[in-house]
Amino acid sequence: MRIREVQHPARIVPAAFLITILIGTALLMLPAAHAEAGGAPWIVALFTAVSAVCVTGLVIVDTGTYWSPFGQVVIMALFQIGGFGMMTAATLLGLMVNRSLRLRTKLTAQVETHSLGVGDVTSVAKLVLIVTIIAESIVAVFLTTRLHAAYDLPLTEAAWSGVFHAVSAFNNAGFSIHEDSLVRYASDAFILVPVMLAIIVGGLGFPVLHDLRNRLRDPHHWSVHTKLTLLGSGVLLAGGAAILLFFEWSNPLTLGPLTVAEKLLSATFASVSARTAGFNAIDIGALTHESWGLHYFLMFIGGGSAGTAGGVKVGTAMILILLVVAEIRGRSDTEAFGRRISISAQRQAITVLVLGSTMVVLGTLVILRQTDIPSDQVIFEVISAFATVGLSTGITADLPEAAQLMLALLMYVGRVGTITLAASLALGEHRMPYRYPEEHPIVG
Amino acid sequence: MRIREVQHPARIVPAAFLITILIGTALLMLPAAHAEAGGAPWIVALFTAVSAVCVTGLVIVDTGTYWSPFGQVVIMALFQIGGFGMMTAATLLGLMVNRSLRLRTKLTAQVETHSLGVGDVTSVAKLVLIVTIIAESIVAVFLTTRLHAAYDLPLTEAAWSGVFHAVSAFNNAGFSIHEDSLVRYASDAFILVPVMLAIIVGGLGFPVLHDLRNRLRDPHHWSVHTKLTLLGSGVLLAGGAAILLFFEWSNPLTLGPLTVAEKLLSATFASVSARTAGFNAIDIGALTHESWGLHYFLMFIGGGSAGTAGGVKVGTAMILILLVVAEIRGRSDTEAFGRRISISAQRQAITVLVLGSTMVVLGTLVILRQTDIPSDQVIFEVISAFATVGLSTGITADLPEAAQLMLALLMYVGRVGTITLAASLALGEHRMPYRYPEEHPIVG
Ligand SMILES: [K+]
Ligand SMILES: [K+]
Repeated sequence: MRIREVQHPARIVPAAFLITILIGTALLMLPAAHAEAGGAPWIVALFTAVSAVCVTGLVIVDTGTYWSPFGQVVIMALFQIGGFGMMTAATLLGLMVNRSLRLRTKLTAQVETHSLGVGDVTSVAKLVLIVTIIAESIVAVFLTTRLHAAYDLPLTEAAWSGVFHAVSAFNNAGFSIHEDSLVRYASDAFILVPVMLAIIVGGLGFPVLHDLRNRLRDPHHWSVHTKLTLLGSGVLLAGGAAILLFFEWSNPLTLGPLTVAEKLLSATFASVSARTAGFNAIDIGALTHESWGLHYFLMFIGGGSAGTAGGVKVGTAMILILLVVAEIRGRSDTEAFGRRISISAQRQAITVLVLGSTMVVLGTLVILRQTDIPSDQVIFEVISAFATVGLSTGITADLPEAAQLMLALLMYVGRVGTITLAASLALGEHRMPYRYPEEHPIVG
Repeated sequence: MRIREVQHPARIVPAAFLITILIGTALLMLPAAHAEAGGAPWIVALFTAVSAVCVTGLVIVDTGTYWSPFGQVVIMALFQIGGFGMMTAATLLGLMVNRSLRLRTKLTAQVETHSLGVGDVTSVAKLVLIVTIIAESIVAVFLTTRLHAAYDLPLTEAAWSGVFHAVSAFNNAGFSIHEDSLVRYASDAFILVPVMLAIIVGGLGFPVLHDLRNRLRDPHHWSVHTKLTLLGSGVLLAGGAAILLFFEWSNPLTLGPLTVAEKLLSATFASVSARTAGFNAIDIGALTHESWGLHYFLMFIGGGSAGTAGGVKVGTAMILILLVVAEIRGRSDTEAFGRRISISAQRQAITVLVLGSTMVVLGTLVILRQTDIPSDQVIFEVISAFATVGLSTGITADLPEAAQLMLALLMYVGRVGTITLAASLALGEHRMPYRYPEEHPIVG
């Protein structure tokens, strides 16, 4: 039973993010947010607010020392709001375009009408909130216990660090109150594993989590989206870790000095984190150039749709791969798990890929014009911003203001743009009253 | 009237190219081909033969001084055969998959059957040959006259240089008998303009040339392929030149010291040449990094289908752009010039793009593993090889053998692969007796 229709979320999301960013900037400019006397400059406050709301984690100042406890709470609130808001909005958008994504029977009827009622919004928001609170609490308790027991931190300090990193991990925000991110815990599985799990769960996206929760023992009835996302995430995670091990095994600045078990842990963590979380337990600037190339790829793909992850999304990449496979096998339909992927989903996937690549290319060219930094580092930073990853080869803080603003724009477009775009594209679809005659131009 | 069916060209082409390469390698290893005593080492002969047959123009030795006149004739013969062979084969393949590509009424009926007769092969080959001879002769006469008159070269030397560069230009081979390519003629419009015209005509592809020749004054009846290729080529050429002017205007090592007219000439020539010809009149290694980025883009796209050009082709890129535009406008059909682009052409375009990008990424990673050369130079060389462009930032000669072999493989796959692939994909298309139910996964 629908009470009244709500405003179209694809139009609300960009404005809501912008308003949150502006409020965050204002709060961070307050002297109370700054660890030292006086307020932070507007560019620092703005960049940090954008990075937090867009759950990116790129920083130009050290979160743990530059900002006061109040400032750190503001930052955590911003990435919690950003992550929660996007997860809720993207799920609602997905509901409107995707018939296979059923939350409740009640909602199914409305999918056809491409509209949502207030009741749907609140019920989705409530579910997302419950998942968020449960996941973050479990991880925070684990981290707090470990930090208190093994690192002799006083309980309040351990709890603050535990909560901050748990929230940051589940929202794939990548913010850390340590200047070296998680490098100090590089060989501590009791820290890295809970963080990894939070990243993975948050990054799969709400539709997948919902499917798993309702039908965990019944994989046959998972949606194609769930199957594609789980398969793709698994392959990227394992493949990324294996290739990183290969490239970095004997690099004295990264995995070289570690034991085999530590190498495995670090490579797995880096592979998980590269896909959008943005924590690092090894020095990104010291990686081989081949590993940077791998990071371009992992970061650009990102995580699952309608979650806290960025990038073009695993589902998008999987559809493109299936399309190529179908073409090579000479099948006229693109198929997955006994379903044929709709033409419009395929076309959306290509659109997301092409527009994403275009943003990265333009962003790189703009920043290259303003600095003398080698292009491979600029490309790294641009993809990291666009895919809201937050890993850095270490150049962000030293960039000129205009380049930092470009990165902020990339974070905003990357976070708000692809999903808004994909959804508004799908909703805008309409049939023409006539069709042109078909033609098959030459390709390749 | 069909006498008998010929073997499927998509299966002949890779083998024919391989055999030509092996014969070329053997000939270039003869002591008679080497300017100094003794035969050339196998790696030098192989790399040069691959580069010539695949009309790329990447070299590891200077063509004008390392090879004897006999060796230079062999090289010219190889790129003439390579260019002619590909133009003929690709046109025949296009005929089989493309109903809109009509050479003769006689052929039209056979298009439906996806097969060709011996008569078709000879008539296409004859037409391609006539176009080739006419175009090359005109340019050779122009160049010879200019070299004899303005540079005081003896007539035989001027004629040899004129013929060599005319054949090289029309076939988009990029080989030059000068170590500095065409840098010495950087401000001589009487050399650069004829060369540019030969490049453009050769690079448009035979189907476009045929359409223009038969229906020059009747653009309404040009095929969609012709319209897309002409529009795309025009935009890339003008846009590329404009952006290069912007990036290089005051670069003291490239356009900086030139007059405004010379700047315009050089930028236009570089834009034309980047798309696949591979001659350079300015020092590629001295370009700004932004210009390298532009070159990645121009080289990867390349020229027209079924011509001497490489890359993923202008038509492919145009289809992808049209697809994105249609998606953004919410149209369910991808349209161009009052026609709707077939779904299978769109899927082929994506496949060519994805496989091409994959080759470039893999090639770059393999070469990065073997050297300490900065990645932006490696990427440049890899795209240049894959798109059979032949421009170089200057690293090719100094690469280890394994990396040179990787470049040779990229040239071969880039030359033979995309077209074979596209054609064999289109021919392999078949409908399944049943279809799976449709599903629309979440994208982006
Ligand atoms: K992040
Ligand atoms: K070339």
